[in-house]
Amino acid sequence: MGDRPLEGKTPLKAAEKPNMDEISREGINGIMDVISPGIVPGSDTAHLHLLGYGHEKYYPGRGVFEALGAGIELRSGDVAFRANFATVDDRMTIKDRRAGRKGSKELEKAIDGMMIDNIKIIFRNTTEHRCVVVMRPLEDALSARVSDVDPHAEGEKIQKCRPLNGGTEEIKTSKAVNEFVKRSYEILSEHPVNRERIERGEAPANIVILRGAGKYVKVEEIEERWGFGGACVAGASLYKGVAKFIGMEVLKVEGATGRADTDLKAKADAAIDALKRKEFVFIHVKATDNFGHDGDFEGKTEMISRIDSQLIGRIMDHASADYIVLTADHSTPVSIRRHSADPVPVAIAGEGVRKDDVEDFDEFSAAHGGMCRIRGKDLLPILSDLMGYYRMYGV
Amino acid sequence: MGDRPLEGKTPLKAAEKPNMDEISREGINGIMDVISPGIVPGSDTAHLHLLGYGHEKYYPGRGVFEALGAGIELRSGDVAFRANFATVDDRMTIKDRRAGRKGSKELEKAIDGMMIDNIKIIFRNTTEHRCVVVMRPLEDALSARVSDVDPHAEGEKIQKCRPLNGGTEEIKTSKAVNEFVKRSYEILSEHPVNRERIERGEAPANIVILRGAGKYVKVEEIEERWGFGGACVAGASLYKGVAKFIGMEVLKVEGATGRADTDLKAKADAAIDALKRKEFVFIHVKATDNFGHDGDFEGKTEMISRIDSQLIGRIMDHASADYIVLTADHSTPVSIRRHSADPVPVAIAGEGVRKDDVEDFDEFSAAHGGMCRIRGKDLLPILSDLMGYYRMYGV
Repeated sequence: MGDRPLEGKTPLKAAEKPNMDEISREGINGIMDVISPGIVPGSDTAHLHLLGYGHEKYYPGRGVFEALGAGIELRSGDVAFRANFATVDDRMTIKDRRAGRKGSKELEKAIDGMMIDNIKIIFRNTTEHRCVVVMRPLEDALSARVSDVDPHAEGEKIQKCRPLNGGTEEIKTSKAVNEFVKRSYEILSEHPVNRERIERGEAPANIVILRGAGKYVKVEEIEERWGFGGACVAGASLYKGVAKFIGMEVLKVEGATGRADTDLKAKADAAIDALKRKEFVFIHVKATDNFGHDGDFEGKTEMISRIDSQLIGRIMDHASADYIVLTADHSTPVSIRRHSADPVPVAIAGEGVRKDDVEDFDEFSAAHGGMCRIRGKDLLPILSDLMGYYRMYGV
Repeated sequence: MGDRPLEGKTPLKAAEKPNMDEISREGINGIMDVISPGIVPGSDTAHLHLLGYGHEKYYPGRGVFEALGAGIELRSGDVAFRANFATVDDRMTIKDRRAGRKGSKELEKAIDGMMIDNIKIIFRNTTEHRCVVVMRPLEDALSARVSDVDPHAEGEKIQKCRPLNGGTEEIKTSKAVNEFVKRSYEILSEHPVNRERIERGEAPANIVILRGAGKYVKVEEIEERWGFGGACVAGASLYKGVAKFIGMEVLKVEGATGRADTDLKAKADAAIDALKRKEFVFIHVKATDNFGHDGDFEGKTEMISRIDSQLIGRIMDHASADYIVLTADHSTPVSIRRHSADPVPVAIAGEGVRKDDVEDFDEFSAAHGGMCRIRGKDLLPILSDLMGYYRMYGV
């Protein structure tokens, strides 16, 4: 949600957002470096910090979050990758990194369950061309320290997966990845689904390219760490994956898409319902970030107003919650169309907070608030103290 | 001193405190997380941080501070415990954890100096039923990693002291603790002081129960660490113990009790006198915390006003000091009657500080001050820089 000013205004300053402003007015405000000042957070590391897990210790690699977000039950030692259905020519040059943005359950089935030596392959086609590959070692351990197969650009050849340092586990893993890619090509290029696509003049999904390896290790769950369990309401799989990674319940919400067309009312209702049985509900809306990446000031501004009325207002009217925390996982300024390190505003309302004089929820007003400047990983400890789940250090 | 607002006010906001406000007005202000945001400090860890010693590295266990605060000269390797005179029945069930809140110099003498194998026992009855036990190993080393004997509740049996991990030193220590408790019962239950108490219908102090083991290791002294030595003015033994632990002189102040009846003028005078020969004097007042634990808003407010006039005003009028720092070791909100992680206000007045616009010393005004938000362990480095005892990093 955070941004840099254009002619003095950010989307947050420009938006109509009476409900967000009410949270600021009733609560305590501040600005927050989600990781630390000047450090640009990725969406995954940002959420780890916001949920009280420093990425230095807990970041498992993006593939793990995507696999968990896709609903795969990982076991310690599994190595997970983000993957795409892609289109290559017979010289292994990428024609379309996204294979016409189309997925296929039949193609998924043709690959899922494959065995490579003693490694079991779990393969899911999640949305459109996006896939997840999990390598489950039945004997010797694998490593996530291997390079990407995906060249991240069209017209480039697919890359050989290489061990980053050269240990036994890395060599074994990179060999398995290369074998997987080769076999995916063999299976997919002959598959009837692709023959039909070619006949219709479409790009065949004739290979699977991998990136973002991550090794799953079970971590201390949120309830153990902060005293309360929680549920997650999100559209995009990454956020669900982070939530699952730390032991939160991931709610299925019909219409939550992670795009601007997401059903904000359905997300609000899922949260309101979850709050009847969970002490902590985390709600994520992705679309403001997308508008930032697109450089669309108006779109981002309107999205913020929609979030205010359809999501936040609804929650404030119907949920029974002692505390409400409003913040962003990072800034994505429309002027630069990428994540930035600009701190995000944060407001906490509820019993006992030191209400300050801030009247608007935006990047500028928040800097005058009573919380001054905190870090992302301070947020859950502050909340756990307010909720009474503190641990005292010493006596 | 810190609190959360009740109908918009904290005791600090409600109190008459012209002298504190003058320090804020003349100085630079901020809010301070004594450990870090969201982390609830105990009184002992809080003071370590305020004096520039992170508890992660320097916390020795509570028993050490109590023993030092009671005036015992510890040697490296000593294991110290907090202890109570208690009343048990002949099945070792606790009837009164505090033995009628009464102490006895005669009972102290009957136990002090006991030998258990090659361990010398140093025993002090400090205030009321409260005691300190120090085990000084004359040969093999002891460990503080042993469990409490004190069950922390009446109607419960006393606990066997157990080694927490099971190493040789832990086993030796736990055996010595159990032997000590057994012998304390044998000695005390037959003692004339207790026979008389029983005849008068009072609870006999017929056993000593231990908790909070800590092993003493000498640490870098304050003068070595920050450049200046110091003296401590406090009523309660814990604060004296922390000061002693880091090599400060602990002043004997008649009438300093650590309770609301403490003689604030005597504490002021002791500080004024000490400032003639010490560069740094640390003054602690305990009673505001007690009022917080009791949920007594009025009592806490009045105590702050008394501290302002009888202690701070007197020091400002009569002491020759270049700098005055005013802060709290943690918040104890009257609404929740426990320590909380809410940051405390901090003000520093003296030559060269960047005077800001803050006019009142309280949790809300301080958040607008020029120091913004700092941590407890930043305070002594800031002070040492102002005092000219800085160490420059690099050239």
